[in-house]
Amino acid sequence: MSESWHGGAAAVATLTFDVDAETPILAHGRGYAGHATTMSHQAYGPDVGLPRILGLLDELAVPATFFVPGWVAEQRPGLAASIAERGHEVAHHSYSHRPPTSLTPEEERADFVRALEVFAAQGVEISGHRAALWEATWRTAGLVAEHGLLYDSSLMGDDRPYIVETGAGRVVELPVHWSLDDWEQYAYLPAPNVGAVIESPAKVLELWRTELDGMRRYRCLFNLCVHPFLSGRPGRVEALRRFLEYALERGDVRFARCRDVARAALADSGLPVRPHRPPVVDEETYPA
Amino acid sequence: MSESWHGGAAAVATLTFDVDAETPILAHGRGYAGHATTMSHQAYGPDVGLPRILGLLDELAVPATFFVPGWVAEQRPGLAASIAERGHEVAHHSYSHRPPTSLTPEEERADFVRALEVFAAQGVEISGHRAALWEATWRTAGLVAEHGLLYDSSLMGDDRPYIVETGAGRVVELPVHWSLDDWEQYAYLPAPNVGAVIESPAKVLELWRTELDGMRRYRCLFNLCVHPFLSGRPGRVEALRRFLEYALERGDVRFARCRDVARAALADSGLPVRPHRPPVVDEETYPA
Amino acid sequence: MSESWHGGAAAVATLTFDVDAETPILAHGRGYAGHATTMSHQAYGPDVGLPRILGLLDELAVPATFFVPGWVAEQRPGLAASIAERGHEVAHHSYSHRPPTSLTPEEERADFVRALEVFAAQGVEISGHRAALWEATWRTAGLVAEHGLLYDSSLMGDDRPYIVETGAGRVVELPVHWSLDDWEQYAYLPAPNVGAVIESPAKVLELWRTELDGMRRYRCLFNLCVHPFLSGRPGRVEALRRFLEYALERGDVRFARCRDVARAALADSGLPVRPHRPPVVDEETYPA
Amino acid sequence: MSESWHGGAAAVATLTFDVDAETPILAHGRGYAGHATTMSHQAYGPDVGLPRILGLLDELAVPATFFVPGWVAEQRPGLAASIAERGHEVAHHSYSHRPPTSLTPEEERADFVRALEVFAAQGVEISGHRAALWEATWRTAGLVAEHGLLYDSSLMGDDRPYIVETGAGRVVELPVHWSLDDWEQYAYLPAPNVGAVIESPAKVLELWRTELDGMRRYRCLFNLCVHPFLSGRPGRVEALRRFLEYALERGDVRFARCRDVARAALADSGLPVRPHRPPVVDEETYPA
Repeated sequence: MSESWHGGAAAVATLTFDVDAETPILAHGRGYAGHATTMSHQAYGPDVGLPRILGLLDELAVPATFFVPGWVAEQRPGLAASIAERGHEVAHHSYSHRPPTSLTPEEERADFVRALEVFAAQGVEISGHRAALWEATWRTAGLVAEHGLLYDSSLMGDDRPYIVETGAGRVVELPVHWSLDDWEQYAYLPAPNVGAVIESPAKVLELWRTELDGMRRYRCLFNLCVHPFLSGRPGRVEALRRFLEYALERGDVRFARCRDVARAALADSGLPVRPHRPPVVDEETYPA
Repeated sequence: MSESWHGGAAAVATLTFDVDAETPILAHGRGYAGHATTMSHQAYGPDVGLPRILGLLDELAVPATFFVPGWVAEQRPGLAASIAERGHEVAHHSYSHRPPTSLTPEEERADFVRALEVFAAQGVEISGHRAALWEATWRTAGLVAEHGLLYDSSLMGDDRPYIVETGAGRVVELPVHWSLDDWEQYAYLPAPNVGAVIESPAKVLELWRTELDGMRRYRCLFNLCVHPFLSGRPGRVEALRRFLEYALERGDVRFARCRDVARAALADSGLPVRPHRPPVVDEETYPA
Repeated sequence: MSESWHGGAAAVATLTFDVDAETPILAHGRGYAGHATTMSHQAYGPDVGLPRILGLLDELAVPATFFVPGWVAEQRPGLAASIAERGHEVAHHSYSHRPPTSLTPEEERADFVRALEVFAAQGVEISGHRAALWEATWRTAGLVAEHGLLYDSSLMGDDRPYIVETGAGRVVELPVHWSLDDWEQYAYLPAPNVGAVIESPAKVLELWRTELDGMRRYRCLFNLCVHPFLSGRPGRVEALRRFLEYALERGDVRFARCRDVARAALADSGLPVRPHRPPVVDEETYPA
Repeated sequence: MSESWHGGAAAVATLTFDVDAETPILAHGRGYAGHATTMSHQAYGPDVGLPRILGLLDELAVPATFFVPGWVAEQRPGLAASIAERGHEVAHHSYSHRPPTSLTPEEERADFVRALEVFAAQGVEISGHRAALWEATWRTAGLVAEHGLLYDSSLMGDDRPYIVETGAGRVVELPVHWSLDDWEQYAYLPAPNVGAVIESPAKVLELWRTELDGMRRYRCLFNLCVHPFLSGRPGRVEALRRFLEYALERGDVRFARCRDVARAALADSGLPVRPHRPPVVDEETYPA
């Protein structure tokens, strides 16, 4: 007999926090290291936003998963371990936050392995992975399987967990989506171009509530992605708080860490297997 | 005596779903086939969004029209036929989803014909056409007439059906508009650039309701364009559901497939004929 | 003794409609003449939006001013005269809608004169001018004065009428602003880039009401700019209708044609004179 | 014993007005001096928006800080002094408004000093500085310390005042943030690209209220940045008025000039010292 991945809940919510700090900006060019305001804007994430968010999660007793680039864990020793000590999960979010689609296969592998080495050296247990910028290649899931992780959280082929068969074994995919990412709602910088519109937390709260309610109808995985340098701001943390209160009040939403959902999914024999290969493209039909 | 195209309704609603899958992305360059997350984001349309939308239409007993690129029908045999079997219309949406304005006349014709061949081979009856990206050339409507289709749905010269005279015969135009397309409201990708702002379903619902109410005053064609990879998401399907409930509750809105509206329009002798030729442009006035 | 320009109203509203048709697109390159959908999107303005708007103005008995490029008047003989016959004002909106800042002085003058010739040949009386794209040069107001027009409506140096002294005499400026233009709220095309976000009419209605209420406090000129190809759509005309009803219900807003406001302003000896000359810029301070 | 920087208030609000006039546009290229409409759009700030805002502050008896580029103070003699005479603070906002990150160290220093000389010549006392475009370099805070100013207001490393140690001494940082800047909400020009979406004042009011309420929970510095050429418009001044009324009605928000907050912060021995140095970046990890 097989347990269902959702354990009977109308929807399962995985709160995920991408603790990117300076990495997504440096990935646009190391010259940005000289932009003091921009660097301080990014450092706000681990320095101010993260403790505030951890406090909120404690207050509401909600477990979460923190995706941390290896570079960030290295620059701020103790950060990853202190998150894990509070009962949350720390997961692999590349070393440098350069998007895999911009790397050679060798570079992607090296970046993947380097992050694992950082976490191993810090004694932080890693069960899953999320590609930088959600720009996975067709090799990414194979790296996840090959290194013995349970799950990936970078693809968008469903809104429920599914199985990806790689040459190196199967992986649970906990799919993400741009509409459940605070980046598209809040990110703004004059340079590099990371976004151009700063939305109100009220709009974001409404967007998340609407998606949660839809997901409760269709029994989905509400896989929310939040960045401490963005949603750590006071008014935005308020919106996050109100969203969490709303979800908790529904009574039918289960909050879990990604690794717990992945384990439940692996034990569910009814999980769909989605094909994992590039479309075959005719060179005459589509331009280079 | 002539029947009016609207049959006495305050407004006629054609729900149209553009089942684009990977095509609009590959049209930006075949290299995107290597972007696994982006490809999964597009595959979500036929794999997850489409069945969910078909279920909603069954539930509300509303007929619809599905514009399918030939490439998509070819890659997913059975998809087009299964839509038609549920009582909906399948229509021509190019082969490759490359915009006609980017093609030579020969390329546009070849792409047009190739899609017809795919549908013929699958036994799917085609009555109408919609240009990829709504970027028709002045030749497009002629191709529609030449191949014996009843209607085109790519132009914006009115908000009621009208007649286009082409060298190859007359065609009914069922006009579209950017404001009744979910793409401009929801589409986001880091690359290629398909849009940069993710709006709330609540805003989109309000936009559609406002336009429907205006159209009920002016007796128009509410020709809604929805993409399963976008509006198939749970919260957005909820907005679509609420919109359909709102329209049904008005009591004066008629839902129909495009081919049915086109037939009614052809039987209406009062339909306007809109000129269909490029403006004559003075080379000294306007730059190249 | 001098009459005040506002005649005692809390705010004066000039409804202005820029009947641009195809011109702003052709100004991006004459190749767009081959884009059938885009051309039909623009033709919708004079063909569908304009009659609908004229009907609304009749219904509410509100006078307005229509800024028409000479090219549009030439291509659609009778259009300008038919607007004037309904009691509205027709005004000069360049010949080609190329922005003056992109032209040489000779080109700007030739374009300016050519439009006047079109209107003269059609027997349409012209009292004022608005620069294409609101991109006036420091020569533009001089051309207005030199050709005996009363007013210009292209600058943004105030939110009340003011006097501009040019080498060729004084001109009344009826200032405009981007926030009172429907273009930034509604315009979208895949190419050329004319805008990327399609807002809800409810947002636009709120924006206009808020500005009107602010202007009623400060006794300003509410100089609204609407494009028939954009705001002629059913849901947007509803928003315009509701805005006009709101303004009429205030009881303290005076609606007038631009030429009537300009005449009242010229008779008001208290009107401010704003300096009209380019800033002196140090070449070492600012880059080329 | 040490006083706390907030004096017991739930949040401290510094209203700051960046009186940029033409400078941010000229920083894109001096050719824009020839764009008459754009220059008038910028001149509206000091000519119309500023007096209106000063009137509102008088009415509500709220003190504020005005950051003025040296070039603006030079071009409009008397402007800076007249602000100071009304009890507000005038502060250093560069000479030319070119972003420091685009300048050589020598250029940044020269621009910094030149502004100080302008204010000294006008007898205007300067206590603090804000970098143009909030694009400080790692040298900027050192210039502030070296020239004996109390504070900088250009970084984003916290949402409460903090200490920055520079080679030339310590400086109080009064941090800013893009979400408390009216530029991202309102700025629009066809060229140069300064922003593309014009939001409703109702949205902006909601954004500011939400952030203020969040900051009242976490005892932060609400450091609002407003531009007279943007928020001086009638409807936007209404939103500012309503925001100020809302904040005053809370009863627990203290309004202060930046220099007063900086002095209080210097007297607070509990203020955090945030590291102020560029991240060390591996050349192999991040691209040039």
